[in-house]
This record gives sequence, C-alpha cells and structure tokens, in this order.
Amino acid sequence: MNASVVTHSSPASPELEVEQYLHQHIPLTVAMGVRVKIATPGRVELAAPLAPNINHHATVFGGSASALATLSAWTLVHVGLRHAEVEAVIVIQRNVMSYEEPIYGDFSAVCTLIDDTAWQRFLKTLERRGRARITMNAHLGFEGRQVASFEGDFVALKG
Amino acid sequence: MNASVVTHSSPASPELEVEQYLHQHIPLTVAMGVRVKIATPGRVELAAPLAPNINHHATVFGGSASALATLSAWTLVHVGLRHAEVEAVIVIQRNVMSYEEPIYGDFSAVCTLIDDTAWQRFLKTLERRGRARITMNAHLGFEGRQVASFEGDFVALKG
Repeated sequence: MNASVVTHSSPASPELEVEQYLHQHIPLTVAMGVRVKIATPGRVELAAPLAPNINHHATVFGGSASALATLSAWTLVHVGLRHAEVEAVIVIQRNVMSYEEPIYGDFSAVCTLIDDTAWQRFLKTLERRGRARITMNAHLGFEGRQVASFEGDFVALKG
Repeated sequence: MNASVVTHSSPASPELEVEQYLHQHIPLTVAMGVRVKIATPGRVELAAPLAPNINHHATVFGGSASALATLSAWTLVHVGLRHAEVEAVIVIQRNVMSYEEPIYGDFSAVCTLIDDTAWQRFLKTLERRGRARITMNAHLGFEGRQVASFEGDFVALKG
C-alpha cells in the first residue's frame, strides 16, 4: 500500500491526493488498506480489503467497518471545504453505526452529498461564526448491497 | 506486539489469553497496539498507544477510538459468556459513539457491567431462545479523564 504513496508522479488525481493524505497522516488507513476510488465534492467512495480487517468470524471487524464509514464522511467534508476554498479543521463529534449484515469480503464506504441546502448553510455559518456543524450519512457496500449505515456529526473550525 | 502472542508460557492470565485471542483473530488489534489490562466478567480495560492510532491533528483517529471502545464492550460480553459457560457467537448490531474531547496520547477503553439484572435476563433469554440482545456502555479515558462515550447493542447466538 505504501507504493501508492511514492510511485505516482504529479499532478495527482484528486483521488490519489486524498489517498496519499490519508496514508501519510492516519497510519491506520495503511494498515486497513484503504483506497480512495472517488473523491468529488458530491461523492466519496473508499474501498478496503477483507484480509487486514477480518475478525474471528471471518467477516469484517466492526471497528474497521465503522472506521471506513467515518473516513468516507470526513473525506466528503474535507473535499467539499477544499472545493469551496475554505481552510478549516474538521472533527467528528458523534456517530451512529448500524451493522445490517455481516461483510464476507472486500467492502466499500460511500458518502454522498444529499442535502445541498444544508451544505450551503454549513458553509455560510462557518464563514460567519468560524464554526459550523453538519450531519453526514454514509453506507457500506458489499457485493452491490448496502450492509451498514452510518450517520455522523462533524464540526468544522476555521483556522 | 506479536511478541506477546508467542513468548508467554501457559497457564496464561485471563488478560493475556484475551489479548492473544484478539491479536490472532482481529489483525487490526495488532496494528492498533491493543493491550488487555483487565478482563474480568465485571470489568474490561483495554489500552492503546497514540502512535499507530494518530490522525492529521496529532490526536487519536476517531476510527481507532470507536474501534477500541467496541472491542472493550465485545470483550466484556465474551468474558461474561465464558464465565457463565455459554458458547455463543457475539455480533454488534448498532453503536453510538460520542467524541467528547480530543485525545492527545495513549488512551484506554473501559467497559463495566453496571446492570446485573439486565445481564441475567440476557443469559436467560439466550438459554431459552438461543438468541438475546444486550446494550453495553463503555468510555474512553485519557490522563484520568473520560474523553469519549460508547453505547453498543450486541446480539449473542448460541452455537
């Protein structure tokens, strides 16, 4: 996985740039084998293999499932703020995770911007008060099915 | 960390036994540097160092925080069922995680059995129906303070 950090030449795709950022700053994403498939302001899709995330039932460990969902939502806020040219620190405040089905193989986390009004309000509040909160929804996928859902509250603080 | 899996001679302490189980079956616990400090039917305490769990703010990554809390709660159910001599598969169904303060260093997760009546009901239901659900609460600690709280619903299924 480290190979992806060092072997690609710039200019990097947005996906590769985000992947490098995650791998360099959050070492657990290297251990988990996290890959960034899509990283646009409207949609983030991450992928991870089963092997480093396996548990004693030969399915994905709940901690890995929750971590990948969290990363997808954090990344969407990160990419969206960068797209809006806003410098801010993003921290997670609270999350709810529902594990709907066991995950027997490589899995993905998808976070999409479904409420553009809420996003615009988030940006305006952040601009005005230097601090704003937004709720993001994500889900995990396995073999084309939704297998877990995530809701997280993130706070952005202007630097 | 692998050293702890291979160098200790039996009979192992309950803590070492659980730690070996986690390290052998959930490789992410090795990557996270998870140690089992206490593993009794009434209290589980896990510890993890900052370095492998760090994020881009030099604090603990939310995914690691949530994973350690989940492990502490899962372990308490696991140890409790073993103590009651019940063979069952334990899966997490849902969890809520509140990140109350940033965590700037090595951290711990503590899960205690606070409602013995609920636990006895859980055991009886599991015995009668072969399936039962229980809600567990845990918190993360850093420098003697509570810095995050976790609530998780676990389902046990008799083998």
